[in-house]
Amino acid sequence: MKTLPLPKGFSAAGIAAGIKQGGGKDMALIVSDVPAVSAAVFTTNQIKAAPVNWDIQVVEHLGARAIVMNSGNANACTGSQGKNDVETTAVLTAAKLDVEPNEIFVCSTGTIGKPLPMDQITGGIETLFDHLSPQHANNAAEAMMTTDLAPKSLTTEINIRGKPVRITGLAKGSGMIEPNMATMLAFVLTDAAVEKHALQCALRFATDSSFNRITVDGDQSTNDSVIALANGLAGNELLTQDSEEWNLFFQTLEKMLFKLAMMIVKDGEGATKVVTIRVIGAASNGEADEAARAVANSMLNKTAWAGERPNWGRIMDAIGYSHAQVQEDKVDITYEAAPAVRGGMAFLETPEEELVNVVSQEAFTIHINLNLGGGEAVVYTCNCTEEYVRINVE
Amino acid sequence: MKTLPLPKGFSAAGIAAGIKQGGGKDMALIVSDVPAVSAAVFTTNQIKAAPVNWDIQVVEHLGARAIVMNSGNANACTGSQGKNDVETTAVLTAAKLDVEPNEIFVCSTGTIGKPLPMDQITGGIETLFDHLSPQHANNAAEAMMTTDLAPKSLTTEINIRGKPVRITGLAKGSGMIEPNMATMLAFVLTDAAVEKHALQCALRFATDSSFNRITVDGDQSTNDSVIALANGLAGNELLTQDSEEWNLFFQTLEKMLFKLAMMIVKDGEGATKVVTIRVIGAASNGEADEAARAVANSMLNKTAWAGERPNWGRIMDAIGYSHAQVQEDKVDITYEAAPAVRGGMAFLETPEEELVNVVSQEAFTIHINLNLGGGEAVVYTCNCTEEYVRINVE
Repeated sequence: MKTLPLPKGFSAAGIAAGIKQGGGKDMALIVSDVPAVSAAVFTTNQIKAAPVNWDIQVVEHLGARAIVMNSGNANACTGSQGKNDVETTAVLTAAKLDVEPNEIFVCSTGTIGKPLPMDQITGGIETLFDHLSPQHANNAAEAMMTTDLAPKSLTTEINIRGKPVRITGLAKGSGMIEPNMATMLAFVLTDAAVEKHALQCALRFATDSSFNRITVDGDQSTNDSVIALANGLAGNELLTQDSEEWNLFFQTLEKMLFKLAMMIVKDGEGATKVVTIRVIGAASNGEADEAARAVANSMLNKTAWAGERPNWGRIMDAIGYSHAQVQEDKVDITYEAAPAVRGGMAFLETPEEELVNVVSQEAFTIHINLNLGGGEAVVYTCNCTEEYVRINVE
Repeated sequence: MKTLPLPKGFSAAGIAAGIKQGGGKDMALIVSDVPAVSAAVFTTNQIKAAPVNWDIQVVEHLGARAIVMNSGNANACTGSQGKNDVETTAVLTAAKLDVEPNEIFVCSTGTIGKPLPMDQITGGIETLFDHLSPQHANNAAEAMMTTDLAPKSLTTEINIRGKPVRITGLAKGSGMIEPNMATMLAFVLTDAAVEKHALQCALRFATDSSFNRITVDGDQSTNDSVIALANGLAGNELLTQDSEEWNLFFQTLEKMLFKLAMMIVKDGEGATKVVTIRVIGAASNGEADEAARAVANSMLNKTAWAGERPNWGRIMDAIGYSHAQVQEDKVDITYEAAPAVRGGMAFLETPEEELVNVVSQEAFTIHINLNLGGGEAVVYTCNCTEEYVRINVE
């Protein structure tokens, strides 16, 4: 695997600390040489894992120095013990860097309800620091994986008034992905100098148009977190929302999160297809979103796509029971460019094979026009195969 | 198979009319010798099949004489052609009985978006009348099946002031079952004399506590209908909600619909377990219902049960993202009598094996106490196996 370049002043490590059953890398560390401006977006699940509650405080702090994470155990529903364990993890990591614990983000992903194995975590932190290197971002991405088939990372460079700025993204997530980022973690690292409020806005917007638009099984997790660190070592003039280069920076960030989100959908447990559901003509954007998610989360649709059958009746059914207002005889459905439904009925001039050809592709878009108003939304999902069930039964 | 006894004055038929691919019985007819009082509950899907829209008018009529149904084709999303086809079906059936078309209920279940094959329907109606007999209720139940593994029917007798009264129920449904009766049909036939308004109330209440409490895959269909016919031939004094025997009649009806609903859950596509989710202590009954359905519809829970793993973390996760108010440290979860979670955390005194034993049973109840208020709800669901996906992919 090609080494994933990190932005200036960042180093990373990923090691096997013995938390995951069956071995494999399960702890990662990302360190910035200097205090970084941070931003974060967290799960909206009412039940938040201990590390999420910790990180909600860390992001309020002005400078952050590191992210330490483990896979194999979510440290969720673990009460005061879980809270103590996060704190211990932060304290130990902070001590190695000679900084305050509230400069350390802590993330966990894995099984809910079991206490963190603190012997492994403690030993793991030691080992992580031994392996810390600007060359080890790949290892960190690998340690983030749970049921993921492949690590997910990207890096890109932009030029801000002659200063090269690098942005690197690492993500994990495959099953249990729904609105608001279920069981997914993403870390965005940049050497850009960015004003804190601007970074927070950018991360929120970019998350809403990427991770919050994908859905694998409609479940949301207790641990979802997107964390960004910007350490300013690129030496650019501080970026704010008023900067001339703000759009370039924001769009680069947005594009990166979108690509990472697509990697997650593609890696949906047992998934073999990426399906884009685009709804227009809804009474409002919110209703378009409701309709798109009803279609995207319907097991009957996800299994039909797995069988490479268009089955637009299941789409009509799903929008009909969604919370979006729907008028049957106004609905148009189009598979890529092939009209399937016009005025709520089969468009017979399109031969069935043409629709079958669309859903046989590895990626396709279904356009749904409710013809009621100007509301629009798009949601990205995947098909559901027997493999999904096999993975989750086990 | 034992002959299913019908109430006085009812006869039935079930035949293969050539609508279903691969043959098999696909049309049923139920006739009352005299006009019957009718009641009905229909799908809340905004997209209703043509027969549902027809039946909404039939139930307003004072006397009904027959139900004619087909499986293999839903006659949904079929526009004015679909509307005409229902009317033709009713007209042909009515002509055989020398009654008005608006005395005929028409039901369909099967694929959405294809026009009814009217040659088969027309021929089928002829054949159905040739086979009509008080002994043929089993055939009718069989003709209602789509992906059902077994026909679902029950009959029971009660005594109302010395008059024996019989109630017979026939149902179909397996996948795509959610709140509000998705892709399920049920017919309740009785020779009791019942006042129309009372019968409608009884059917609505009994449906809410039975068919509307089961969920297989969270999808709702365009065709769900529960129809009751009461022809009065038992000769009892007219039952009203003020009758002394009203409770006996209502509870018998309710028990029957509940048993039929359980037969449907048990027959959930690829399902091998019936799981009861009972939520108490919610802020309101509505919120209890939201929490229970979030758990019951979560693929992560349904697959965990298939794997016979308690995995209460997935329950915590589901109630956390439900629309019910939840406070993590107040949540108690109990598997049958075994405490699994107390105060939002693992109850360690219960050995894991005890929880595994519960979820290894063919039927079990999970009790969730949110400890926030007096709201309660119960939902019945099933596990999800690879077989479910296989069935729906095909």
